[in-house]
Amino acid sequence: MELAESDVQIQLSRRRPGQSALATPRDEKDQVAIQSGLEHGVTLGTPIAMLVRNQDQRPHDYSETDLYPRPSHADYTYLAKYGVKASSGGGRSSARETIGRVAAGAIAEKYLRQAHGIEIVAFTSSVGKITIPSTPSPTSASSTAPSVAPSEDDAAEDALSPEFREILSTVTRAQVDANPTRCPHAPTAEKITARIMRAKESLDSIGGTVTCVVRNVPAGLGEPVFDKFEAKLAHAMLSIPATKGFEIGSGFKGTEVPGSKHNDKFVYKEGRLRTETNWSGGIQGGITNGEDIYFRVGFKSPATISQAQSTAQYDGTAGQLAARGRHDPCVVPRAVPIVEAMAALVVMDMLMIQNARNGAVSLLPPVTTLPKTMVLPKSNGR
Amino acid sequence: MELAESDVQIQLSRRRPGQSALATPRDEKDQVAIQSGLEHGVTLGTPIAMLVRNQDQRPHDYSETDLYPRPSHADYTYLAKYGVKASSGGGRSSARETIGRVAAGAIAEKYLRQAHGIEIVAFTSSVGKITIPSTPSPTSASSTAPSVAPSEDDAAEDALSPEFREILSTVTRAQVDANPTRCPHAPTAEKITARIMRAKESLDSIGGTVTCVVRNVPAGLGEPVFDKFEAKLAHAMLSIPATKGFEIGSGFKGTEVPGSKHNDKFVYKEGRLRTETNWSGGIQGGITNGEDIYFRVGFKSPATISQAQSTAQYDGTAGQLAARGRHDPCVVPRAVPIVEAMAALVVMDMLMIQNARNGAVSLLPPVTTLPKTMVLPKSNGR
Amino acid sequence: MELAESDVQIQLSRRRPGQSALATPRDEKDQVAIQSGLEHGVTLGTPIAMLVRNQDQRPHDYSETDLYPRPSHADYTYLAKYGVKASSGGGRSSARETIGRVAAGAIAEKYLRQAHGIEIVAFTSSVGKITIPSTPSPTSASSTAPSVAPSEDDAAEDALSPEFREILSTVTRAQVDANPTRCPHAPTAEKITARIMRAKESLDSIGGTVTCVVRNVPAGLGEPVFDKFEAKLAHAMLSIPATKGFEIGSGFKGTEVPGSKHNDKFVYKEGRLRTETNWSGGIQGGITNGEDIYFRVGFKSPATISQAQSTAQYDGTAGQLAARGRHDPCVVPRAVPIVEAMAALVVMDMLMIQNARNGAVSLLPPVTTLPKTMVLPKSNGR
Amino acid sequence: MELAESDVQIQLSRRRPGQSALATPRDEKDQVAIQSGLEHGVTLGTPIAMLVRNQDQRPHDYSETDLYPRPSHADYTYLAKYGVKASSGGGRSSARETIGRVAAGAIAEKYLRQAHGIEIVAFTSSVGKITIPSTPSPTSASSTAPSVAPSEDDAAEDALSPEFREILSTVTRAQVDANPTRCPHAPTAEKITARIMRAKESLDSIGGTVTCVVRNVPAGLGEPVFDKFEAKLAHAMLSIPATKGFEIGSGFKGTEVPGSKHNDKFVYKEGRLRTETNWSGGIQGGITNGEDIYFRVGFKSPATISQAQSTAQYDGTAGQLAARGRHDPCVVPRAVPIVEAMAALVVMDMLMIQNARNGAVSLLPPVTTLPKTMVLPKSNGR
Repeated sequence: MELAESDVQIQLSRRRPGQSALATPRDEKDQVAIQSGLEHGVTLGTPIAMLVRNQDQRPHDYSETDLYPRPSHADYTYLAKYGVKASSGGGRSSARETIGRVAAGAIAEKYLRQAHGIEIVAFTSSVGKITIPSTPSPTSASSTAPSVAPSEDDAAEDALSPEFREILSTVTRAQVDANPTRCPHAPTAEKITARIMRAKESLDSIGGTVTCVVRNVPAGLGEPVFDKFEAKLAHAMLSIPATKGFEIGSGFKGTEVPGSKHNDKFVYKEGRLRTETNWSGGIQGGITNGEDIYFRVGFKSPATISQAQSTAQYDGTAGQLAARGRHDPCVVPRAVPIVEAMAALVVMDMLMIQNARNGAVSLLPPVTTLPKTMVLPKSNGR
Repeated sequence: MELAESDVQIQLSRRRPGQSALATPRDEKDQVAIQSGLEHGVTLGTPIAMLVRNQDQRPHDYSETDLYPRPSHADYTYLAKYGVKASSGGGRSSARETIGRVAAGAIAEKYLRQAHGIEIVAFTSSVGKITIPSTPSPTSASSTAPSVAPSEDDAAEDALSPEFREILSTVTRAQVDANPTRCPHAPTAEKITARIMRAKESLDSIGGTVTCVVRNVPAGLGEPVFDKFEAKLAHAMLSIPATKGFEIGSGFKGTEVPGSKHNDKFVYKEGRLRTETNWSGGIQGGITNGEDIYFRVGFKSPATISQAQSTAQYDGTAGQLAARGRHDPCVVPRAVPIVEAMAALVVMDMLMIQNARNGAVSLLPPVTTLPKTMVLPKSNGR
Repeated sequence: MELAESDVQIQLSRRRPGQSALATPRDEKDQVAIQSGLEHGVTLGTPIAMLVRNQDQRPHDYSETDLYPRPSHADYTYLAKYGVKASSGGGRSSARETIGRVAAGAIAEKYLRQAHGIEIVAFTSSVGKITIPSTPSPTSASSTAPSVAPSEDDAAEDALSPEFREILSTVTRAQVDANPTRCPHAPTAEKITARIMRAKESLDSIGGTVTCVVRNVPAGLGEPVFDKFEAKLAHAMLSIPATKGFEIGSGFKGTEVPGSKHNDKFVYKEGRLRTETNWSGGIQGGITNGEDIYFRVGFKSPATISQAQSTAQYDGTAGQLAARGRHDPCVVPRAVPIVEAMAALVVMDMLMIQNARNGAVSLLPPVTTLPKTMVLPKSNGR
Repeated sequence: MELAESDVQIQLSRRRPGQSALATPRDEKDQVAIQSGLEHGVTLGTPIAMLVRNQDQRPHDYSETDLYPRPSHADYTYLAKYGVKASSGGGRSSARETIGRVAAGAIAEKYLRQAHGIEIVAFTSSVGKITIPSTPSPTSASSTAPSVAPSEDDAAEDALSPEFREILSTVTRAQVDANPTRCPHAPTAEKITARIMRAKESLDSIGGTVTCVVRNVPAGLGEPVFDKFEAKLAHAMLSIPATKGFEIGSGFKGTEVPGSKHNDKFVYKEGRLRTETNWSGGIQGGITNGEDIYFRVGFKSPATISQAQSTAQYDGTAGQLAARGRHDPCVVPRAVPIVEAMAALVVMDMLMIQNARNGAVSLLPPVTTLPKTMVLPKSNGR
């Protein structure tokens, strides 16, 4: 495959700190240099080593953590796990490790785009309580459908508003990047900006959600039982630092919708079976059906805040800890390329597994003894 | 380890159909027989084979699916994946495969209880829009905290109400099983019963959520980066049929809470560091901290409903499909032991990995050259 | 894939005890019944469960092992590993577990034959000191090349005699099965028969070697570094009970041959690069080159013998143990289908991995920027 | 664990080229620098990155391979696998990759020594036809036991001569390194030196074998069925470049010995069950029994030789290739630390797996209901 450092750099630059006033002032260039696996701009099949040097490290920023396990950080749990800890910084629990994910994901993504036309676009769907209208978000129901009297009987027909569906179907990375919040819905982006600035000014932090859509994934990816496509996605997303939740398709909101409304009926169009609606989020029974895959990931408010916190030291002594490091008041905008990267890696993995199966089947003599109800009709374009 | 079929049967019986009027009338006895791995009631270290025979199968119930891929089922995606499908039933995409999970989980659970005093209790936390007060549920905010004027600035202080926290800390399986809904909050259970009966009567179905708490897990479980404890949990939960979402600790609701309120400050009690609050859900940086682990799993409304649905046949012909099989109007109560089982398997896996590490460390000569800030103080009881 | 029980039975019947006077009189029918994964004689992509019932078990045969760990058996090591042991028999350390390998291998083999024309043929190449002439066997050198004065300087030009090469290139299973010894070289088969009968009469046992050839394997299978094709083969073969050694291609004998004679020069024939000789055994740098893969596996003399042995009891008491079970004086003839099965499984695994890669590459746009010395010339037929 | 670069360097220096006149004149310093995972000389539990820079690379040495796939190298097979190849050198198929194995193995080895007193010593046991007396080697029988009339009936009682057993029991790395051949048997070492020098002078190469002993491994390591200890060892050894064979314990020679002589009878000494002989090589039924593990690995003659070879170019044109690179006439002495490293990694892996199990068992309440014949007697010291 043709590959250049620029294919990777573009996503690293979207992840790096210091992109806007909304993010940490640490100005890490995060320039990638490919060390191996390429010649003449073509991958050789050998491992691709990539090097990103840390150019703005200030280890003394972390000195206070000699005494304190930072609240809601991994300092204490790593110490409990290993019995020993590095003298500074969070090591592998620092979100800085996500550079590797983004770099690898960018390569996977290039392949998926070239070979299958797959598009992966993530965006900020909420920050704090501010959310794109009708995102399947905890508090959206009341604010976006005020005229519908909420009742226990109602299906949440508005879980995916037409406005939100439109974003899912059409949003591009250019649209996402048009605003530093990476929220492609302008009125919401404006409110999110204010919310993040307020967190910053109050030496506090705020969380939010990233929604991601993956288009043009072939039907048939994902494995039965344990490695369902959504299970692999959930694993990948919850492995990103600071994540608290994952929803596929209609998600938690969908649990409120009766089956008669939630079911995605089949229709025949464009030479194959499609679904009329897509509450399933492109996955049924753990296996992709060719419709758009979309999911939402929750990120907690960053644990590092500059205001003093009353908390105990490692030895149990009570005290006050105030972080000196430069940190983000909100990680959500920078999390967007990380979510995209992990999504790309999951699609790539599941595709490779299915490739192995498809390649094996393609060499067998045709089977002619089966009832026609057991095989895919010829009228289906797949 | 001592093991009897009754250790397994108890959980299988909680999972089986036909337990109450709320569930499918299929009356599967689901009696387990252990085939290998035991002698004199003690495990031998060899694989434990367990057999559960299907005693009430009616394959003809599924005959209509010869022509129709059932909406929001896996019929179509399995066919797209394999190019061929079984002539009846859903095969591995049927939730009947969860019998194996529950059986395996029951053994893991017995070990965890005996060796570590670990308790795993799951319960129905919502059905449709009916939810235990202050569950971190989509719609709970407005209904349960009416006196607090909702505003974008507010932290969701009520995400875990005292009432809900109390349930998490103390709920037992006996309390859960006291009501067929498996909801341990009596007023909510009553409403849930009505909601499920209504779904049943209208030949429809309804979804909901299961919340699970795991107590007494040692600190230090979970692996850095990709196999964080919550990532493995999310993988396990999203592999259960019909799941749509996963939240750990404060979950999506927690994304709305500023860091200053969301951080779990450390306090010294009972001879070790504990956290004052537990928004983290017992996991920090992907590794357990010894506090209660709790999480929530969303289950969609069952796709199989008895009312007719307009949907296309495999060959594209439009038509009407009405299910004849006997199915649950709501799977949530029966999902409770499945969630417990998968939780037990994850804890067991992560424990085995950490055992390997701890066993290795225990044989090394003591290291004396490290600054004391790099090692766990003796005052910590772990 | 079309599949019938007879596809599996044929190999199980070659493995089963009681086939001839050379083997154990235990007469196990070893009839396979396929339980799942098939309809109308076609595999569905779902797991294929196969059941083989034990029809001639006599557990009391093993009763003496209550007191004695059998010498060179796994009784003691399993007890050391698990701290507990089954009250009778060897459990998973019994070679009876190889039924599962043979059954699975038969399915893999059918696929490989249909899809790639791959042929796998194993045969008895030696028993005790009796060996097919010029097998690369410990003692063959002197007996088969008497006129060549052995000297330290000589290359072992005779390591693969023309006679032996001919067998490798052409031998069929029918030829192998023509003699109960499964040695396709008639004069050697006769001597082997006598050797085994002598072991049987003296209540003793004897070992030997199985040589296996795999023809028509595509070039490009095997993974760099750790999962080289021969490493996976060695792993598979040494996992068969009673194996003591593995050689690929020229093997240990090849270590005596200077590079100038051992190197397989390339020649162009049949539209692609072939090698003139095949000391490499079809694998170079861990990856197949399309030539015949051949290897040899050593099986020790069965540990169970009917003569009394002076050995200690579990509690340390010295004593005399004489086996009462019915056992083979030589396992080599029955090991032939087991070696074939494990070979088939390794080829299948490596093929699936390469399929995943090939499938991925096939969808990329052609790369045009590479110097022609970096790509496979069109004149190569692969 | 305490760890210093010197712990690793010592083995890298034993592997590096240019150590003596017997090896390639490439003078690679192979200095290791530890990049991560350590502070104050103690491992932190985080990944240990080690960097070894190539200081004497001459890529133009390889230029002729632009046209020729080198015979018995991986040039052709890598090209067949990936469809593209690096413009120079062998990439991952170069034995230079074994630096990583040796570095990792040195760390594992330090742990095994500290925690279990495990000793791993490998040595050159043969080069060409020259072998330490009574190594279980192809040609040793006739030359070392001339007075015994060889017959088909004879057991190979001399397979492990007292002389060879003594070496296995006592040999140290200092003794191994006393001679550049790494053969600890002085008369053999002298002949081996001459043999290698002759290969060098004739622009040719020669192979040989490495024997390795691992002492003090706890009983109980290795997994039933597929991951038997010897299967993992065989996998590891055959993954080393240029290997052709693997034998455990009595190996191929042992296949000639009747069971009555080959069985390792149990005796009670030093408070536990030991075996009188050790033909099993410390492993029974795939699981270690606490006796010395010993095995032999065959290395082919290096494929790179300086004399011209008639062989085809990539495009099929016949031609003459003479290597210009600097290469070893015999890799066996330098392979010694590689074999040790891979052995250490296998022991470490199997130990970690058993640790997980032992740790789990240790927390269970004692089982009292089993017949005493099913548990390890107290009189056994394990």
